[in-house]
Amino acid sequence: MSIRVTVWGENVHEHKNKIVAQIYPLLMHGTIAAALNGNKGITATTVTLQDAEHGLTKEKLAETDVLIWWGHVAHGDVADEIVERVCDAVWGGMGVIFLHSAHFSKPFKRLMGAPCNLYWREAGERERLWVTSRHHPIAAGIPEHFELEYEEMYGEPFGVPEPLETVFISWFAGGEVFRSGLTYKRGAGKIFYFRPGHETYPTYHDANVQRVIANAVKWAYNPEARIADPHDGPNRTVAEALEPIVERGPRLHQDGEAGYR
Amino acid sequence: MSIRVTVWGENVHEHKNKIVAQIYPLLMHGTIAAALNGNKGITATTVTLQDAEHGLTKEKLAETDVLIWWGHVAHGDVADEIVERVCDAVWGGMGVIFLHSAHFSKPFKRLMGAPCNLYWREAGERERLWVTSRHHPIAAGIPEHFELEYEEMYGEPFGVPEPLETVFISWFAGGEVFRSGLTYKRGAGKIFYFRPGHETYPTYHDANVQRVIANAVKWAYNPEARIADPHDGPNRTVAEALEPIVERGPRLHQDGEAGYR
Amino acid sequence: MSIRVTVWGENVHEHKNKIVAQIYPLLMHGTIAAALNGNKGITATTVTLQDAEHGLTKEKLAETDVLIWWGHVAHGDVADEIVERVCDAVWGGMGVIFLHSAHFSKPFKRLMGAPCNLYWREAGERERLWVTSRHHPIAAGIPEHFELEYEEMYGEPFGVPEPLETVFISWFAGGEVFRSGLTYKRGAGKIFYFRPGHETYPTYHDANVQRVIANAVKWAYNPEARIADPHDGPNRTVAEALEPIVERGPRLHQDGEAGYR
Amino acid sequence: MSIRVTVWGENVHEHKNKIVAQIYPLLMHGTIAAALNGNKGITATTVTLQDAEHGLTKEKLAETDVLIWWGHVAHGDVADEIVERVCDAVWGGMGVIFLHSAHFSKPFKRLMGAPCNLYWREAGERERLWVTSRHHPIAAGIPEHFELEYEEMYGEPFGVPEPLETVFISWFAGGEVFRSGLTYKRGAGKIFYFRPGHETYPTYHDANVQRVIANAVKWAYNPEARIADPHDGPNRTVAEALEPIVERGPRLHQDGEAGYR
Repeated sequence: MSIRVTVWGENVHEHKNKIVAQIYPLLMHGTIAAALNGNKGITATTVTLQDAEHGLTKEKLAETDVLIWWGHVAHGDVADEIVERVCDAVWGGMGVIFLHSAHFSKPFKRLMGAPCNLYWREAGERERLWVTSRHHPIAAGIPEHFELEYEEMYGEPFGVPEPLETVFISWFAGGEVFRSGLTYKRGAGKIFYFRPGHETYPTYHDANVQRVIANAVKWAYNPEARIADPHDGPNRTVAEALEPIVERGPRLHQDGEAGYR
Repeated sequence: MSIRVTVWGENVHEHKNKIVAQIYPLLMHGTIAAALNGNKGITATTVTLQDAEHGLTKEKLAETDVLIWWGHVAHGDVADEIVERVCDAVWGGMGVIFLHSAHFSKPFKRLMGAPCNLYWREAGERERLWVTSRHHPIAAGIPEHFELEYEEMYGEPFGVPEPLETVFISWFAGGEVFRSGLTYKRGAGKIFYFRPGHETYPTYHDANVQRVIANAVKWAYNPEARIADPHDGPNRTVAEALEPIVERGPRLHQDGEAGYR
Repeated sequence: MSIRVTVWGENVHEHKNKIVAQIYPLLMHGTIAAALNGNKGITATTVTLQDAEHGLTKEKLAETDVLIWWGHVAHGDVADEIVERVCDAVWGGMGVIFLHSAHFSKPFKRLMGAPCNLYWREAGERERLWVTSRHHPIAAGIPEHFELEYEEMYGEPFGVPEPLETVFISWFAGGEVFRSGLTYKRGAGKIFYFRPGHETYPTYHDANVQRVIANAVKWAYNPEARIADPHDGPNRTVAEALEPIVERGPRLHQDGEAGYR
Repeated sequence: MSIRVTVWGENVHEHKNKIVAQIYPLLMHGTIAAALNGNKGITATTVTLQDAEHGLTKEKLAETDVLIWWGHVAHGDVADEIVERVCDAVWGGMGVIFLHSAHFSKPFKRLMGAPCNLYWREAGERERLWVTSRHHPIAAGIPEHFELEYEEMYGEPFGVPEPLETVFISWFAGGEVFRSGLTYKRGAGKIFYFRPGHETYPTYHDANVQRVIANAVKWAYNPEARIADPHDGPNRTVAEALEPIVERGPRLHQDGEAGYR
């Protein structure tokens, strides 16, 4: 069976900015999805901010194994209710990949619990990505370093939590460095942040970038059934205890009640 | 100079429940603060949910080096604006310690980006805490294991991100285990979660528990000045670049503009 | 293509101790390998301490995707040269799983860089393993907790480095806890430590234990080609630099020389 | 009381290479120690490879709170027995800081359990270090970035385990990046690796470098008593069990025996 990927696109600059439109005639999310569909075992579809519920209905998320998120200019337009729904899916086991300026997207910030801020410069400068974790599955088939001749600079300190593993670090011509590939887990869901992808440059046409994203999809995919209620915190009564215990001392709660939140 | 600690108390069950009132005549936050004030180099004060702005005004947070949070029944009564203010202080460098049922408090969940759920049972059962990180400063002076004869059970899986370090793991008489002491960093702020402290038991009178909390205060304290805007993500222009670069390619932004959020 | 597993058995107590021989008529390594061979996509063979080069010739390691190690009484009999060869294979990308008393085996201690010590008691007591990382692939299909009615106790503090992820924690009837499933990466190789498996108990006949080991094999497997020299630290000359630089200042080395070790 | 630092110097190139001798008239270890002695609360002394037992007698290690290690050309001349003694002290709680080419020193490789390899180029190129962990105590008082105009390049992938925290990442003029400040814990001991310090450049005269090393000393220092035997793995008998248990099933061991290694 194929891994079902949903590529979420903000879908704004492709229509407002001639350069973006020229570089990405399939739109950005369409370009990313098309590249993924070139991989055996991956089936990618797209949704956008402008769709009803931003395209992220409960049904769509239930059929999504891995979500990919690209946004930049319209983070504030994403409804909080949808953000919570996306996070619930991640906590329940859905994989998710955040690309480039999605570092400031609502769901990424929500999952990180941190400011996710950084320095930036839009000057079409050279970026060189270095693999820092040998043989990491997300770097499979990627050389020890590869270049993107034109990219926006993102610079450290990057305001994110310490990751499980640092997979890529970028060098920039203007003198900065950046942790460009980071893995996390939140609840049952695996998360990958990948830096490149400014909309005025042809980054998502780059073969190495496409390969990293496809690798990350396979890495983030979890075949287990989604957890229905990822917030569930059940009472286990004395009668249900795994070892024989006797209730002692004063108590606040009654057996089987929901607990305070 | 002394480390300035603010102990935040929900302050509800102490007034509604006779047992809690009897065990904690100084109230829970008052008991915790009094124990801390017995340590050289620590000055603790208290605030509560019922205070204006829950006692967490901008001024109070600016004068707080380490915040301690205990809440249980009234998590939902904490205003979202105050939660963001607390998180801003943490991201800016304030230390914070979450105790027991604060695992479901708004600021803890906000900082973790995860459900923070668990199993629980209120049966006055024996808890034994084991040190898992030898010589960790939070475990200084603590024996390899110590017991709390009466405690509420919290059981794994605990829905939190992988910590920087696991400092304590608890054994429960009813057959469960729990990661009871966990360290994190979010932004510039250090975070410690410490499990024990159900309000119907005398846990905060226990010498080992008091010692762990005092150790954690010293560990979480950061003498550096608070970061004024922990969300700041500034543009660094071509002219400001650290290495000489020439602007190339198309662009979306003007020099020095704020960037999209 | 199948994942090629080599199960390394110390193969001593099976021949000296009647109880062990009765519980494991296929020998311990044979039992583990037989269970693995019941999984589609895994082909397991066995070697032992008594084989020439302990069965771990260069050729055998080159054909091993994942090595499993069980040893207890004869850690000191393993030749240091073979230990280095095993570690070279791990650093080059081979997966490895250490079982139970292999916590004190030479290759595990070598890869951890730590004492790997613990408390222990052989009393046939109940062990209950709890999953601490929801939906971790090593816990796939495993319930939130499972029991081994008769096991040796291992107790914290466990003298190992902080893992990438803690997957299981054990509860023991005698009052101890232990981090029973831990993941690491060293060089290009993935490492899993799994606690259960004292030789006088039928642990490796347990379906959950067998499932965990099979899951761990799939997790530790890396399809990429083994790194030929995992210690290689090459000089990159000025002429080979990725950005144009001019040699400056005094120097110790000549171009392309091997560097000091 | 002062933190007692021992700076270990290889002490070879200072005597063989005129340039090194000119830059470091106090020798390298002497320069590092002199800078540390300018800090209130730190008392630094030096020992060298050529001293009896390389200066690292049991008595000297017992009086050392934090050891600093610089070596390059003579890693192989360090006796294995002394390496084990150093590691025992670290596992028992001594802090240790490895500088620059000490990435290939025997004790660092021993503690990492990994190849610790990297790319390198000696061309006097510009290195810029970026702080990646805001308000980390090792970066206290250090600007977000600082430069060393002449340094040897070290390039990723750096063959070390994932650290507890990445504190610095370096940018190099020739196009490489490197994780330059990494924290670890092994046994009870804290470890910091800090990249800069090639002997033909005046790196240890740099105020920022001196500050980082002094900060790292304070971070690595542990006031608790050294663990006498960091390898101890004691039997806890049925009679000593913390909960009442009855011995069951077959057994290999007698009460209180040492266990197999």
